[in-house]
Order: sequence, then structure tokens, then C-alpha cells
Amino acid sequence: LPGAEVEEWRPGAAPADHAVVWSPPQQLFDEQPQLKGIFNLGAGVDAFLKLRLPPGARLVRLDDAGMSVQMAEYVCHAVIRHVRELDVYERDVAQGKWGFRKPRERADYPVGVMGLGVLGARVAQAVGQFDYPVVGWSRSAKEIRGVRCFAGDDQFDAFLAATRILVCLVPLTPQTENILNRETLSKLRPGGYLINVARGAHLVDADLIALLDSGQLAGATLDVFRIEPLPAGHPFWTHPKITVTPHTSARTLRDETIAQIAGKIQALERGESVVGVVDRERGY
Amino acid sequence: LPGAEVEEWRPGAAPADHAVVWSPPQQLFDEQPQLKGIFNLGAGVDAFLKLRLPPGARLVRLDDAGMSVQMAEYVCHAVIRHVRELDVYERDVAQGKWGFRKPRERADYPVGVMGLGVLGARVAQAVGQFDYPVVGWSRSAKEIRGVRCFAGDDQFDAFLAATRILVCLVPLTPQTENILNRETLSKLRPGGYLINVARGAHLVDADLIALLDSGQLAGATLDVFRIEPLPAGHPFWTHPKITVTPHTSARTLRDETIAQIAGKIQALERGESVVGVVDRERGY
Repeated sequence: LPGAEVEEWRPGAAPADHAVVWSPPQQLFDEQPQLKGIFNLGAGVDAFLKLRLPPGARLVRLDDAGMSVQMAEYVCHAVIRHVRELDVYERDVAQGKWGFRKPRERADYPVGVMGLGVLGARVAQAVGQFDYPVVGWSRSAKEIRGVRCFAGDDQFDAFLAATRILVCLVPLTPQTENILNRETLSKLRPGGYLINVARGAHLVDADLIALLDSGQLAGATLDVFRIEPLPAGHPFWTHPKITVTPHTSARTLRDETIAQIAGKIQALERGESVVGVVDRERGY
Repeated sequence: LPGAEVEEWRPGAAPADHAVVWSPPQQLFDEQPQLKGIFNLGAGVDAFLKLRLPPGARLVRLDDAGMSVQMAEYVCHAVIRHVRELDVYERDVAQGKWGFRKPRERADYPVGVMGLGVLGARVAQAVGQFDYPVVGWSRSAKEIRGVRCFAGDDQFDAFLAATRILVCLVPLTPQTENILNRETLSKLRPGGYLINVARGAHLVDADLIALLDSGQLAGATLDVFRIEPLPAGHPFWTHPKITVTPHTSARTLRDETIAQIAGKIQALERGESVVGVVDRERGY
């Protein structure tokens, strides 16, 4: 951004046109009511829902910046590892055991993607490349080639009933908090599997553990948690049916992020519209 | 195959038109010189190169039967797991450690696929979906969208030099036995990684271990071995940089295989040509 002055914000800093932020304090917005653009260094903007933002400021989230391909990789790795039982084979091999397991039919493992934005759509298509049946669910109706799409509250149960491997990629809003609970997860096909790559607050932790321990669910891969880092002693750390990763499914990549935010600032300054402006009513 | 008589072969069995086999003994072919078709229950026919087959018999291999999608899954899982360091994260988590690692650039991890038949072509395209640079090598020139293709002995070194993650999917022939050795593997980009899903005899075991121990190669995922099951005490079982699986990358699926072989027998009986007839001179 030639010509732009870039400064690290501290209390009392000079007024700026735009802010680039991650987990910002309320004080920043109270001190900078003139802000025109607030650029979040991530795709999820749930942290802003509790803040009071300057009324004239547009809140803009990253819309891809290299995240969708990472998310597709992470989810495909988890799906393949579970269905092909590569985790089981590795445990066998660690014990010096050369074991065969009966191949599973991929038709028995439909993958359901909750949330069909930029990330969810790419995940759904990537999983489909491996010939799994793919279903999708989103608030408003979507069409994605090769994906049987459900929409809205009315079709949520039908979506769950058609799903065995559930991938959570919805934004965190008051409506989606705790959406992964005993009631909803019990509607998955028997032997269901959860992959949560959205936010920890989507999941009722104790409900997941109860469903795993009762055998209703077969396992889970979790990349996000209510408190991060995941607190020492939390049962997820050592549960034999849970794979934990430290919020690494899709990282913000520096070069792509800089290019995207710079481009959007220039577009806003020219009076053009940009992708990723958050609808504050809707929450994403 | 309505109208066909199907019998398990034993020494002295009645003459048959076609044989469906896995690791057959020489005696079968000595006793059945009238055979018209020999159908192998797998894609690799290296086990036949040492056998004398009836001169009028066509040797036919499985050309997909559900194997290519399994191979694409297996290889993508191994590539993602290595590049995204998901194995490292899992080891960290097992020790209660929430650790971040710097994201890697996928441009630094070109994937090279040796062998561009039905399986290799599908693997190359599947890996390309995750935005890795993909190069390919085959005996005769091929064209695959999104894959930079090399061909023949003359271009083998250039292929290796363009590759960081090497996927071996060539048929095993006298020309390709031991093709993964100290000299060839040393030509990969620094920090190279080997995925062998073809045959164990492609690889010189001791050379791989030497290159891993010297740090020239970063790791390997091996699904095939010179002797299977992998003998107890073989260093591959416990090497920290090697992931072993028990020849499970692409299993012969019963229903798809039956349908394919029945269809080919009917086509041959009608005098039509079929895919997968082995060129015995070439060896695959």
C-alpha cells in the first residue's frame, strides 16, 4: 500500500482510516470512532458480536486467503483416516502387528458439511473427489455441483439423518452456539463421526463424550475448543476416540492475507464493494 | 455369468476356458494349456513374469475396480499428513502439548508421480486438487491436465529434480526393480519424502534407511515390502521417520472385481477387445 502510513495501535494513537485486527479490545473502537474499515485477520468474526463498533465502519472478514484449501486438506485427511482406518493400522503397526481389516463401502459414509460458505463449499467438493456421498446444509439455499443441499431450520433434521460424518463449518452466532449437542448428534446415522473445524462453542463437550462412551458415535476430530489452548486435564486430551489438533486446520497465511486486505482497502477507498463485509444483524 | 460353470482349481481339474487367479502355481498353467483368458485379481502382474503361460492365453489385469479412488485417498492422506505435520501435532497432543508450527508453503512441496496409468493419473489429479505442484513420469509420453509430464529414461533425472514428494506407482518389471535407490532418491529436492504404493522390490531398503538417517530424506510412507507380511525385526517396523501400512492402500473390492471380470470374459467370448490385456514383452 504505497502512500499508506501503517502504525501499531496503542491507547491514544492517532486516528486511522482502517484497522487490521485480531481479538481487538473495546478501547480501540471507543478511541477510533472515525474508522471506515475494520479488517479481521480470520474468517470467523464471532469475537466482534459482543463489541460496540463505530457506526460508520464496515467489518470485513478474510474470505479465503489460502484458508479454504487448507480446510479441504484437513477435513479430507480426517475423513480418509477414519473411514480407511489408517489410525487403527498405525496403532497395529506400532505393536508389530500386520493386520487386515475388511474394506468399507464408501456409500456407507455420507459426509455432511454444515455451512456452505467459501470454506464449506470447497470442503464439500474436495470430499466428493473421493467418491463419498456428500450432503450440505446452510441457512439460505445453495447449489453446489455433486452436493445434495439442505437449507434452513426445517431441513436440518433431514440433513443430519442423511449424514454419517458431520463437518461443522458454520459461523458462530447466538443461533449456532451449542448446535452440536446430544439431541442433534443423536440424529446422525449410527456410527457417526464429528469433525469440528469451526468454533469450540458450537459443541457441548459433555454431550460428545457421552455419545462416544455409549457407542452412539464412533469418534471425533476436533480442531477448535471453548477455551484455547485446550486446558490441561480436559477429557478431550486423552479420550481414545477423539483426535485433537491445536486450531491448525486453516491458518491465516501472511502473504495472501496482506494481499487480500490491501486490495480491499484500495477497493473501499475507490468506493467499490468488497467481498466479506459482515452483516452485523446476521452475525457473519 | 449365467450359463458358466465355476469351479475351484485343484491339480487334475477339468479343462477350463478362463482362470481367475492370485499368485497361481506353474502347475495350473502346465495342466491347462487350452486357457484363453487368465484374469489376475490385482493391478500388478509382476508375479507372472517368472511363469510360463499357455501361448494362446491372454493375461488380463484389473484396470480399476475401485482401486484408483482408494489409491488417491491413501496418497493424499500421506501427503497432507506429512506437509501439514499432522503426525507431529498428534505426537505433541499425546504429550499434552498445544504447539504451533509455522505453516509451510505448498509451492515448496512438489509431488512427483512415477507411473501414469489408471492409478497414477487419478493420484496426480487428486493431489492437484489441493494446489500442490504436480509432476509425473511414465515410460511413454502422457498428457494430464494440471500435471507437468516427463517421459522415458532421458527425462527421469529432470523429473526427480522437480520432485520433493515421490509417489511410486510404476509396474514392477526387470527395468524398474530397485529403481528407488541411493542414487535416484538422492536426486529429489532436499528434504524429500517417499510414498511407495507399488511393489516392495522397487525399493532398496538399506538405501532408504541410510538417506533417512543422514537427513537427506525427511521421511517415507510404505505400503508394500519385498517380503509380506513385513518380517518381524525389519528396521522399517520401528524407524521413527517411516510410516508402515500392511499393503492396504488399494484393496481389490469384491463386487467391482466380479463385475469387471465377468464383463471382460463376455467381451472376449464375443471376440471384442478388453482393457488391461498385459503386453508380456513389456511386462505390464
